[in-house]
Amino acid sequence: MPVQTQKEPQLMQDTMWAIEKSAREPGLKRIVAPIPAIGPKDVRVRVTAFAICGTDLHIVEWDRWAESRIRPPLIPGHEFTGTVESIGPDVTLVKPGDRVTAETHIYCGLCYACRRGLPHLCQNVQILGVDRQGAFADYVVVPEQNVWKLHPDIPEEIAAVHDPLGNAVHTALAGPVAGLKFAVFGCGPIGCFAVGVLKAAGAAWVAAIDKNPMRLGLAERMGADLLLNVERDAVVPAILAGTDGRGVDAMLEMSGNPGAYRDGFASLANGGRVALLGIPSKPLEIDVAKEVIFRGATVQGINGRWIFDTWYRMEALLLSGKLNIGPVITHVLGWEEFDHAVDLQRSGKAGKIVLKRDHP
Amino acid sequence: MPVQTQKEPQLMQDTMWAIEKSAREPGLKRIVAPIPAIGPKDVRVRVTAFAICGTDLHIVEWDRWAESRIRPPLIPGHEFTGTVESIGPDVTLVKPGDRVTAETHIYCGLCYACRRGLPHLCQNVQILGVDRQGAFADYVVVPEQNVWKLHPDIPEEIAAVHDPLGNAVHTALAGPVAGLKFAVFGCGPIGCFAVGVLKAAGAAWVAAIDKNPMRLGLAERMGADLLLNVERDAVVPAILAGTDGRGVDAMLEMSGNPGAYRDGFASLANGGRVALLGIPSKPLEIDVAKEVIFRGATVQGINGRWIFDTWYRMEALLLSGKLNIGPVITHVLGWEEFDHAVDLQRSGKAGKIVLKRDHP
Amino acid sequence: MPVQTQKEPQLMQDTMWAIEKSAREPGLKRIVAPIPAIGPKDVRVRVTAFAICGTDLHIVEWDRWAESRIRPPLIPGHEFTGTVESIGPDVTLVKPGDRVTAETHIYCGLCYACRRGLPHLCQNVQILGVDRQGAFADYVVVPEQNVWKLHPDIPEEIAAVHDPLGNAVHTALAGPVAGLKFAVFGCGPIGCFAVGVLKAAGAAWVAAIDKNPMRLGLAERMGADLLLNVERDAVVPAILAGTDGRGVDAMLEMSGNPGAYRDGFASLANGGRVALLGIPSKPLEIDVAKEVIFRGATVQGINGRWIFDTWYRMEALLLSGKLNIGPVITHVLGWEEFDHAVDLQRSGKAGKIVLKRDHP
Amino acid sequence: MPVQTQKEPQLMQDTMWAIEKSAREPGLKRIVAPIPAIGPKDVRVRVTAFAICGTDLHIVEWDRWAESRIRPPLIPGHEFTGTVESIGPDVTLVKPGDRVTAETHIYCGLCYACRRGLPHLCQNVQILGVDRQGAFADYVVVPEQNVWKLHPDIPEEIAAVHDPLGNAVHTALAGPVAGLKFAVFGCGPIGCFAVGVLKAAGAAWVAAIDKNPMRLGLAERMGADLLLNVERDAVVPAILAGTDGRGVDAMLEMSGNPGAYRDGFASLANGGRVALLGIPSKPLEIDVAKEVIFRGATVQGINGRWIFDTWYRMEALLLSGKLNIGPVITHVLGWEEFDHAVDLQRSGKAGKIVLKRDHP
Repeated sequence: MPVQTQKEPQLMQDTMWAIEKSAREPGLKRIVAPIPAIGPKDVRVRVTAFAICGTDLHIVEWDRWAESRIRPPLIPGHEFTGTVESIGPDVTLVKPGDRVTAETHIYCGLCYACRRGLPHLCQNVQILGVDRQGAFADYVVVPEQNVWKLHPDIPEEIAAVHDPLGNAVHTALAGPVAGLKFAVFGCGPIGCFAVGVLKAAGAAWVAAIDKNPMRLGLAERMGADLLLNVERDAVVPAILAGTDGRGVDAMLEMSGNPGAYRDGFASLANGGRVALLGIPSKPLEIDVAKEVIFRGATVQGINGRWIFDTWYRMEALLLSGKLNIGPVITHVLGWEEFDHAVDLQRSGKAGKIVLKRDHP
Repeated sequence: MPVQTQKEPQLMQDTMWAIEKSAREPGLKRIVAPIPAIGPKDVRVRVTAFAICGTDLHIVEWDRWAESRIRPPLIPGHEFTGTVESIGPDVTLVKPGDRVTAETHIYCGLCYACRRGLPHLCQNVQILGVDRQGAFADYVVVPEQNVWKLHPDIPEEIAAVHDPLGNAVHTALAGPVAGLKFAVFGCGPIGCFAVGVLKAAGAAWVAAIDKNPMRLGLAERMGADLLLNVERDAVVPAILAGTDGRGVDAMLEMSGNPGAYRDGFASLANGGRVALLGIPSKPLEIDVAKEVIFRGATVQGINGRWIFDTWYRMEALLLSGKLNIGPVITHVLGWEEFDHAVDLQRSGKAGKIVLKRDHP
Repeated sequence: MPVQTQKEPQLMQDTMWAIEKSAREPGLKRIVAPIPAIGPKDVRVRVTAFAICGTDLHIVEWDRWAESRIRPPLIPGHEFTGTVESIGPDVTLVKPGDRVTAETHIYCGLCYACRRGLPHLCQNVQILGVDRQGAFADYVVVPEQNVWKLHPDIPEEIAAVHDPLGNAVHTALAGPVAGLKFAVFGCGPIGCFAVGVLKAAGAAWVAAIDKNPMRLGLAERMGADLLLNVERDAVVPAILAGTDGRGVDAMLEMSGNPGAYRDGFASLANGGRVALLGIPSKPLEIDVAKEVIFRGATVQGINGRWIFDTWYRMEALLLSGKLNIGPVITHVLGWEEFDHAVDLQRSGKAGKIVLKRDHP
Repeated sequence: MPVQTQKEPQLMQDTMWAIEKSAREPGLKRIVAPIPAIGPKDVRVRVTAFAICGTDLHIVEWDRWAESRIRPPLIPGHEFTGTVESIGPDVTLVKPGDRVTAETHIYCGLCYACRRGLPHLCQNVQILGVDRQGAFADYVVVPEQNVWKLHPDIPEEIAAVHDPLGNAVHTALAGPVAGLKFAVFGCGPIGCFAVGVLKAAGAAWVAAIDKNPMRLGLAERMGADLLLNVERDAVVPAILAGTDGRGVDAMLEMSGNPGAYRDGFASLANGGRVALLGIPSKPLEIDVAKEVIFRGATVQGINGRWIFDTWYRMEALLLSGKLNIGPVITHVLGWEEFDHAVDLQRSGKAGKIVLKRDHP
């Protein structure tokens, strides 16, 4: 699965540099593309930094999910930040020069879900970099309704990961947190973010579970109270021991792993909350009677971010100093290191990798 | 699996008639048992009517669940009504002669779940007729905290089924109902009750799904707007057609059937609610990514009744005439017809069967 | 306060008939106005029916509120229905010929309230017929985001009052309803609508309180279980008697009357809900310690309608036959009877009055 | 209003030392009283430390509220901790020697509020030290259902103030907190506790308002981000400035002061939450239309603590180190300094004062 994005293309007027999934096969290509046009309510952003999401790896690798969803040619990329370059005539929220990022679920605003206040579950959603042209490029176009204007005190590398951080905030804050006990299964970047959000929100105790010691180390730096390595530790007894035998008040599933489902339910207090964000690669077997019904559990499917409630609260947590995601951003690279970044991400030896246009 | 309860035992002083699971094998026996003693906060009820629950059939048949949970000798029976015969010295809620029924989850009041307002999920719960002596007897003892005093206008056969009706009320009212659309999978007595509760609570449209035409007929009489026979109808397309293609706002699972899970999730609107009450006989495969996460569904494990919020609302729905469960009570028999009642219940040709002590 | 709208103005091309508040003084005038232009996301509606709201009476009378809020010249009117006459190029929700009405809180979509899912509380709200040109005219322009497409089975006179009916739905359904007991203070059209909505949603008992016997009669036809005339009846004792001394589970305040606040709180169960929609004309004295704090009450300020959750549920309640607001629409008149309609509305002898363009 | 508790009474067998409101007049007396008897479900606690609440000052001063509520002779005192001395035969939660405190709202368990999960709003509530014998004594008796067993790591002076700390936890956590902005009006001990709880629960910004510089200093030590002295500062503009002009997401009223109501509502974002705990001494004027209805505010009357959800979360916040209330406990004295403690409390020069039996 080669990623060949190193050859420097020639830019002409009205064209830009971009990385593209050009054909229905593994890999990505560095291309010259036309600078995208904007409509009356659109905002064109000059991208200054982006990050690579697990979704992007699926697109690179052209796995089953990618095959079924992606229609090349497509510029991927949905974790980004940049500066407003131009705006449509009806835009009032931002002006050229403003620093922004975006909610990447482009919602229609008119379907049943949207009109009932659930735009993150829009039936006609178009995800940036998945269903429409994304942010691995000089410019990306976003409708005003999806633009998020950044506070000057938010650093660029954190702005670039508002999308996955928002997933973590959405998942963690989808129920009460303060003074309660939690287990987070999966310590990838979103899992580690979630540990930090939970602790910032007053979680009394957070167990973090993974098999990767580096990731467990990041979870610890984000504030996890107990680290459990599934390849070494007896997860359920350890969680029960840490909760006076009651089980955790809520379980956040950030791995998609069947074992996490099994251990997670078994570690849950009666009446507990289960928040599912990690995407299992295939259907799972669940002992519904024992784990959900008799336990009186509430299981939440979590998708995207609450628009924009999640964003306001995320920003406030960051600006107040309550939430520091620094430890999870393990690498800041330049754009020319894209291929290296993809390899790093795949290797499991990185947390979040941010690529900056103007990296020193 | 013979039920041999017909031989009339001899009663002496301080003894009573009862039906018992006497040994770890199929069947039940009619026995003479000591009248149970009461403690200072207990209420002894002279049972006047009871009903047979699916749980009781499992106990009769001595299936895997029964084997793992039931410790003979045990008097089963948890759907009942009667008259207070005597009370402990500290009881103030009722007095001898009062008509009562009971919440059958005897909760400890001191565990983590109980002390947080979730006594229906008590970690030390003892279910009447399952974990302690039940109501298929002349007398049953219930702690005052679990007793429900009946309004004089509640008829005896309805009083006898407050327990399963309460399941239906709990499941239906665990989310918003008025002006929303629903699918109820499984039209046993609780499913049919739930249809009636939903309609009483302003559900705009309720689809009822089963394979048994008699049960579908009961669901229709309870107000279902669309009847779907899984052996004949294309369930998912029919539900989507009835909801402008959006799917239902909530799905109530009352069957425990894997097919109902599959069709139910596929019929659900984005952001919809899934309330699970039916007990699957074994673990189920669920496409969590598609059905729960991307759909943004909330899945509720429902157990027992909300103590006593469910009860107050159930009583008020009944007394106001909003809810009429008459159609579901297909048979009222005498106690001597217990064996026949068990057969009827098993046959799938009955809704709810109530057995009265003094049936003409 | 003369309303002089009878003189028939001359229409020319690109002009339309309208009723206007032309100057900062009592009264309204019939005028010829330019047909309003539309932007790319706007919808121009040919009005076919409208109704007169209490707000419109304030504008006619030019009271303190009107003086502070209204900037003439203004065409009032926000309860209406009609047919789409033309649409801007970016509109996809409706096409010319579609029957529509509209959510009259024109929200900005970009403020803190809007972006957190509370557009009905938009900080930059413009109310149709209050802050921008309204519907007492041949044509009215509404942004697509605010348009509500009508189901063919919704009759015109009901379509014309979706705005106030939506107020009632929003107020009634802002908490649990089924199996609970209610008091509705104020039996104007919205109060009567609310009685109907509560009953449709399974309220077990609704007391309706007013001083106007005609209005109490309408409340009775909408399903109120107890009618209390504040000039004749002891309101609080009657409500306590109807609720076993517990008080109502929720009180809906639809009158703005200080006496209703006093009686309403005193009739409330501990932990009860108070939903405030009626606008008091001036500050009120409330015994906060006794009525709110020790009672553990939750008091909800209700404004507008939940966009569009309220609308979907309202439509579903109407189409399902659960909610019939026919009794409240006491008069259907022609447009030429506008002055008479205003007088009728003021007199307290009408429920809701709908004026149709093509009334026979 | 003399407090004369210094004369040392003579203890005999079965008697104990206590402080009593002996007559319907100002003051308290030190007395010898019989050691209270226990029933089968009661727990007798040997008090080791207690604190003086504002309610106790009302009782000392014999003001209008005290006159209407208190029936001497009464031993006041409801903030306390101690050691179980003996238990009734049916008690299982604790055993002699256990360290405990108690929920002081003794609830009946059988009324409409209790049976619906709202025991803190029990219609037959008896408050310890108000409606029944309290804790300013060697021994106090509490029913098992109200006893809270202390974790060994909770220090005695903190155990003694679980009751008012629980008020703060209940008020703060009655809505979402993390990433939101708050104003706390009134910086008495409960207000200061609430500041700490909000910050522990992830509040992004908390303004604290009072007129007493010492109290504002305590609020600052508990983490308040902005201190406003009502006698010097323009409260509303300062809060709006601190919230980008939006207003706070929630306002906690801990003072009972009419000015706090006025400023608090004016500082509130649309759709904001108002939590009322402070007891106004008389009815208040509120501009309901402007402050509650058009703002779409939700106003919560807060009473007592959520039994025992509040307690579990309070304990977890304390044990995790998230919440440190040390700064608010400004004085730890011996029991013999009771009169001095009352004077100190009245003077406004103390935060919380804890009196220990065995103070060095």
